[in-house]
Amino acid sequence: MDDLLTLPARMLAIRLARREARAEDVVRACLDRIEALESTVRAWTAVNADGALAAARQLDAGPVTGALHGLPIGVKDLMDTADLPTAYGSPIYAGHRPEYDAAVVSATRAAGAVVLGKTVTTEFATYQPGPTRNPRAPADAPRTPGGSSSGSAAAVAAGMVPLAFGTQTAGSIIRPAAFCGVVGYKPTHGTLPLAGIKPLAPSLDTVGVLARGVDDAAFFIGTLARLPLTPSLPQAARALRVGLFRTPHWDRVDASGGGAFDDAARALERSGATITDVTIPAFTADLTQAQIDIMAIEAAAAFAPEAHARAEGFSAGFASLLASGNALDGTRHAAARAHAARVRHALSETFAHVDVLLAPSAPGEAPAGLDATGDPLFNRMWTLLGVPCVHVPTGLGAAGMPVGVTVIGPTYGDAAALSAAHALERALAHAI
Amino acid sequence: MDDLLTLPARMLAIRLARREARAEDVVRACLDRIEALESTVRAWTAVNADGALAAARQLDAGPVTGALHGLPIGVKDLMDTADLPTAYGSPIYAGHRPEYDAAVVSATRAAGAVVLGKTVTTEFATYQPGPTRNPRAPADAPRTPGGSSSGSAAAVAAGMVPLAFGTQTAGSIIRPAAFCGVVGYKPTHGTLPLAGIKPLAPSLDTVGVLARGVDDAAFFIGTLARLPLTPSLPQAARALRVGLFRTPHWDRVDASGGGAFDDAARALERSGATITDVTIPAFTADLTQAQIDIMAIEAAAAFAPEAHARAEGFSAGFASLLASGNALDGTRHAAARAHAARVRHALSETFAHVDVLLAPSAPGEAPAGLDATGDPLFNRMWTLLGVPCVHVPTGLGAAGMPVGVTVIGPTYGDAAALSAAHALERALAHAI
Repeated sequence: MDDLLTLPARMLAIRLARREARAEDVVRACLDRIEALESTVRAWTAVNADGALAAARQLDAGPVTGALHGLPIGVKDLMDTADLPTAYGSPIYAGHRPEYDAAVVSATRAAGAVVLGKTVTTEFATYQPGPTRNPRAPADAPRTPGGSSSGSAAAVAAGMVPLAFGTQTAGSIIRPAAFCGVVGYKPTHGTLPLAGIKPLAPSLDTVGVLARGVDDAAFFIGTLARLPLTPSLPQAARALRVGLFRTPHWDRVDASGGGAFDDAARALERSGATITDVTIPAFTADLTQAQIDIMAIEAAAAFAPEAHARAEGFSAGFASLLASGNALDGTRHAAARAHAARVRHALSETFAHVDVLLAPSAPGEAPAGLDATGDPLFNRMWTLLGVPCVHVPTGLGAAGMPVGVTVIGPTYGDAAALSAAHALERALAHAI
Repeated sequence: MDDLLTLPARMLAIRLARREARAEDVVRACLDRIEALESTVRAWTAVNADGALAAARQLDAGPVTGALHGLPIGVKDLMDTADLPTAYGSPIYAGHRPEYDAAVVSATRAAGAVVLGKTVTTEFATYQPGPTRNPRAPADAPRTPGGSSSGSAAAVAAGMVPLAFGTQTAGSIIRPAAFCGVVGYKPTHGTLPLAGIKPLAPSLDTVGVLARGVDDAAFFIGTLARLPLTPSLPQAARALRVGLFRTPHWDRVDASGGGAFDDAARALERSGATITDVTIPAFTADLTQAQIDIMAIEAAAAFAPEAHARAEGFSAGFASLLASGNALDGTRHAAARAHAARVRHALSETFAHVDVLLAPSAPGEAPAGLDATGDPLFNRMWTLLGVPCVHVPTGLGAAGMPVGVTVIGPTYGDAAALSAAHALERALAHAI
């Protein structure tokens, strides 16, 4: 049974398609794992045990028609589900029952996946944490799993489910992936549909995945986006060209974060990649402020209806985010977006010389405590630029918590980012 | 009473704010006009007479707090309203009652506007027409009002309401504005929030307005987006530089459409503008195909839930649109979007030499009949590029139906586009 909980999702899918494993057994193994650990991890807002088992039995009894046949998945509770409550992490929507699945949830089911349940999101995918604990931290010294895709990252890290949806507007996939020691993949902005997902700041909002490995993340998103994202394809003869990009915020990286960055660079170099330091003059620290401002302005606009009718249900932090957006005007929004467009253009020139960039995923390990989800400082700029990002765990930091790095590809260069991330993952595995 | 139905919205707002007009009288004048004409025009899916009058009385009794105080507006039935059914033009959603207003509807009410009712949209803002007739066509020879913002354009053209929301994914604001002889304004993509509006193809979907004049359109969108869009500001000393851009589809323009283009160019030239012919080598006809493909791919992704659960409720045309999207993959989506990004960059270089472009809005007058909404051929490329577009009516074509042109500004250059459109509007008025 144990390997049903550790096998890569792509391998599991192959076994399921060959009828060497039954969907019901896979789902039951996940449910048992949830049963055993959920009281401490608290990754889920709802687990649909009966529904998932029924769906699994139906898949076992029928033909194999989809690439995700029988694979259990977790769905971030920012995404609508027709069969489970969807509260977007807010008391305002407690007990809310959407009529339809979100588009990506519907597509996932159509491809044969089994929705195990809904995973914890912070309030409206922003900063107010849910109850989730980082499964990699000791019970007596709890640490945040990161956010906003807190439950999805924790559920995958705890072995409860091989794949779980995340969304990212600032750092909501990469940061929890880093803190929980799993792979996080944020595709190029606009790759997957946002229909049926609570909008936060749509020019930034991006659907992605938390997974056990890079190939699984590629398999899942590639299936849904109908993109050929198979990083295990043979590499081209030419060596991988990796640019080390420490970002304008490098002084915020601590020893653990810096160690992860160095480990990743060395592992890639040993595996034959060409490593160069990269500077991008247009890529200045004010890009982070541009992301902060755009997110606040768009959130204030998107949440006007709730602010009018149900503002008492907002946390103080969320109300303050909206207030900061309302204090800015449309001119600031346009200027910040125009700035991002210019840097996007400069970045595309950088990618004429390197295949991918390597950058920090977080300042360091997951912060202690459960009152906050950590700082998305190292993620905001990449989300603003819309480029594909893959978090790859590199090992443990000074406190014994996971650390890692972000592999960044050019816009629509998801396959390049995933291939490099996969090469890094293998290089690190060989080093151990 | 009559001038309450013909005054520009900005003037009406000034009178209302000075208490020289009562909101109740303005609303009642609109309701009377609807009562008189709706049985032939059929612009509305719901008119909330009692609710609008109650809201107006409340505004008359209270302080003036918003810039749109007392102004009646029409809301396209693609947008959620908490007080009225919202069917998105589809039988699948007949009687659907959203819990919250769409974000822009909420913002409009917060600014003091009164929602008169919901206006007819084609099915999910695509091609299957609603019952609306073009109010400029004779009753015994009906013509389409265009689509998808059919009801909004017809309601403004019929004098039922000074302002009505539209949305555009292909040509759904500019085309009905052209066919009905009103101003249509599609702001830069991303200017107003899409939250609570049924997604069709979000990388293209844009909220805008149908209005009696350019200044009204600027006033309304400028208020909602908190942008300084006042085209009546004194012109800079330098003459307006206008580029005539006939687009790669010029051979599809008929005599009426060509006449409108020439009339607009001459009027601007007489008013002192510098007119030059512009060629943009990167701007090729395949941009239209890129828009068609992106729209189909994103629509197929966004409507996966309805396709799964309620496909029998789709029209044949809508089902065929989704099928065409499902026949393409993510690689095509990325390639089409990358192509658009390159042309966007080339276009930004064109705007170093001209302030705005002038282009056809439609092949010619509104086609006869009510079975189709006309061709968005001349609108698709601009929507794909995300640039601000203003339709300005120039007069009548060979069949006595309205014609006009599109004024296009650079990305975030909405003020420039509106100022030039306003200059054109004045130049044409002086010519008459």
